[in-house]
Amino acid sequence: MGADHRSADISRVWEDLAGDGGRIIYLVLDGAGGLRDAATGATALEHAWTPHLDELARASSCGLLELVGPGITPGSGPGHLALFGYAPLAYPLGRGVLAALGIDFPLHEGDVAARINFATMDDHGNITDRRAGRIDDDLNQRLCDRLRDHVQLDFDGEYFLQTVAGHRAMLVLRGDGLGGDVGDTDPQATGVPPREPTAGSPADERTADLVASFARQARDILADETPANAVLLRGIARHSPLPTLAERFGLRALCVASYPMYRGLARLLGMDVAARPAGPYEAFDSLEEHFGEDHDFYFLHVKDTDRYGEDADFAAKVTAIETVDRLLPRLRALEPDVLVVTADHSTPAAMGAHSWHPVPVLIHGRYARADDIAPFDEYRCRGGGLGLRPGVHLMGLVLANAGRLRKFGA
Amino acid sequence: MGADHRSADISRVWEDLAGDGGRIIYLVLDGAGGLRDAATGATALEHAWTPHLDELARASSCGLLELVGPGITPGSGPGHLALFGYAPLAYPLGRGVLAALGIDFPLHEGDVAARINFATMDDHGNITDRRAGRIDDDLNQRLCDRLRDHVQLDFDGEYFLQTVAGHRAMLVLRGDGLGGDVGDTDPQATGVPPREPTAGSPADERTADLVASFARQARDILADETPANAVLLRGIARHSPLPTLAERFGLRALCVASYPMYRGLARLLGMDVAARPAGPYEAFDSLEEHFGEDHDFYFLHVKDTDRYGEDADFAAKVTAIETVDRLLPRLRALEPDVLVVTADHSTPAAMGAHSWHPVPVLIHGRYARADDIAPFDEYRCRGGGLGLRPGVHLMGLVLANAGRLRKFGA
Repeated sequence: MGADHRSADISRVWEDLAGDGGRIIYLVLDGAGGLRDAATGATALEHAWTPHLDELARASSCGLLELVGPGITPGSGPGHLALFGYAPLAYPLGRGVLAALGIDFPLHEGDVAARINFATMDDHGNITDRRAGRIDDDLNQRLCDRLRDHVQLDFDGEYFLQTVAGHRAMLVLRGDGLGGDVGDTDPQATGVPPREPTAGSPADERTADLVASFARQARDILADETPANAVLLRGIARHSPLPTLAERFGLRALCVASYPMYRGLARLLGMDVAARPAGPYEAFDSLEEHFGEDHDFYFLHVKDTDRYGEDADFAAKVTAIETVDRLLPRLRALEPDVLVVTADHSTPAAMGAHSWHPVPVLIHGRYARADDIAPFDEYRCRGGGLGLRPGVHLMGLVLANAGRLRKFGA
Repeated sequence: MGADHRSADISRVWEDLAGDGGRIIYLVLDGAGGLRDAATGATALEHAWTPHLDELARASSCGLLELVGPGITPGSGPGHLALFGYAPLAYPLGRGVLAALGIDFPLHEGDVAARINFATMDDHGNITDRRAGRIDDDLNQRLCDRLRDHVQLDFDGEYFLQTVAGHRAMLVLRGDGLGGDVGDTDPQATGVPPREPTAGSPADERTADLVASFARQARDILADETPANAVLLRGIARHSPLPTLAERFGLRALCVASYPMYRGLARLLGMDVAARPAGPYEAFDSLEEHFGEDHDFYFLHVKDTDRYGEDADFAAKVTAIETVDRLLPRLRALEPDVLVVTADHSTPAAMGAHSWHPVPVLIHGRYARADDIAPFDEYRCRGGGLGLRPGVHLMGLVLANAGRLRKFGA
């Protein structure tokens, strides 16, 4: 099925047709899709014991989502944008921007944000550890203070250096006419020097110069530090506000997520963001507390499925899915008009990384054409009535199921 | 996987490749798709006894069509446009224009047409019945005569007021530079006053003023009438001719339909329109009479499936499907090169309204890759070789099956 992945203007039509209607819950199991494990012959979703999820799937409309496009491995930002009805190719997002929003840094339109890794560099200028042994928050804080005291950037504007956590920090450049299309200095490998930041167009050269200057000065200032004697910059991007879910689809949305990036993305789309839950149990607690009259759309994010996929830990990914399954009845008990379970991309433990493989999806609601398909996994869902379709289609189907879209034409 | 629903430019390619070939019959069961009924656990198509349709499906290529786009509930106009190979988002249609064409009113390019409902208004100016108790044709005729005698519109052009049937009439404004993007005065609710017609852009303000003036004068003129003492205007649209099926695909087309809107749409696409049949039996008679050398494409429209879906009458919808099934052998006996059975949208009796759910489709012909799928319903067809695809794809597949599309490239 589906849309041209680039234009995907069908979401504009939903904007025109959207109105009031029922309440929606999105349960996003980050990276839940996968491949069959060599030992068990099953994907994590197939192998997990998920009686509640399977019962829900049987009463739902099922299918597969290709989040961004054929063969395209989504970052978490684009994967989620697609689920929320924002065609990822039409709404490019820098990870730096997401990181800034994730730590509540008040970005202005036109700010350029970049993620920073503190890193270890040897005497030859080659990177030996891209995360400086995962230094702790206190050292991170001290290094940021030191850089802030000494780095001078020569431009008609100001910069902000913010600690994030562990080896991560971020840089924000604020000034007129700074382009955001600048390559990472992170070489994504050890034993090689950092890259020079490259400008994508003449409009980005000023930013590239500032990034290069920052990295050079940081190296001088941190020369006597161990193990964090250098910085790598990545995800450099200029901030352009996006139209919100309220503006586009009339949705008053709430996010329950513990990781900064997802909280940042939610804020970018105008969602309210609940206090940071400590783990999946607390996240479900929080959703229960907030479910009510104030919001129409609830985004509940589960990170562990992705984390253990990235760690290539099949068994732990299975356990993470089973944990969610035990909590699922609490969502059904809230009786949302529409309940969606899906993922923002696959993270096969066999690959230890995000992948392009389509993810299963279910839409449960009074008007969903139930498929009698179970269990909920990558193989069974491909026989469902939703078919295999671009991720951006989901929001339209969900709005329709919630009675929030008027008829098109007469 | 497929096309962007807005640009859907693939139909332009068919235009370039189209030539002579075989004869095609489209049997469109309006609103035939649905949801499973709580009592029977089956959709109307699943529940109906349809031996002929099932035998045909088994020998056909089957699939599901999403007529306009994901989550989008098609009006009858857009649903049919998609089936005829006109991407609905690229060919917006006003219902007023369709209504005018449906009563054989000779619309000119640039005319603005609006549907009128005679309605009942109370002393406070609130609408108490949007259809004035469904007044009869004679009263409708008399009220139209009365309005025509007294309404004076102050513009450099002329207006036409035409009776349609029951509580329905239509207004056509003819003059230079009249925009068509004007909101309905019908509030779609009772206990509230009519809406003021709003102009979508400055170019539409003249039209909005004329509509407002017409509604105001009608109210004064009809003040002493019971029950029809007001008019509501809706579906206001400017007429722009569309390229015909002959121009686009070389099809000399014939429509057999009893409802004005479908006859109007057919005329808009350059189809010949057979005399209005009294019911499904007479429609099949008419198709048999006309089938021959003069046309390549035959559109046979069945309304009852939609009507009973809208009435939330599951049993009557089942009966309407069974009636068509008994008549189906008469179409096969004509030996068209390609026979298509499908719907222009779903109308689940459980919703009593049009819906976004995909509809089953079958393409029967010598070169269709037969799926051995039966019965013909929403669940079995999803396993068919046509897959789930946008409605606008159908015409290309049908032209190919009829041997009417040349090879693309060398």
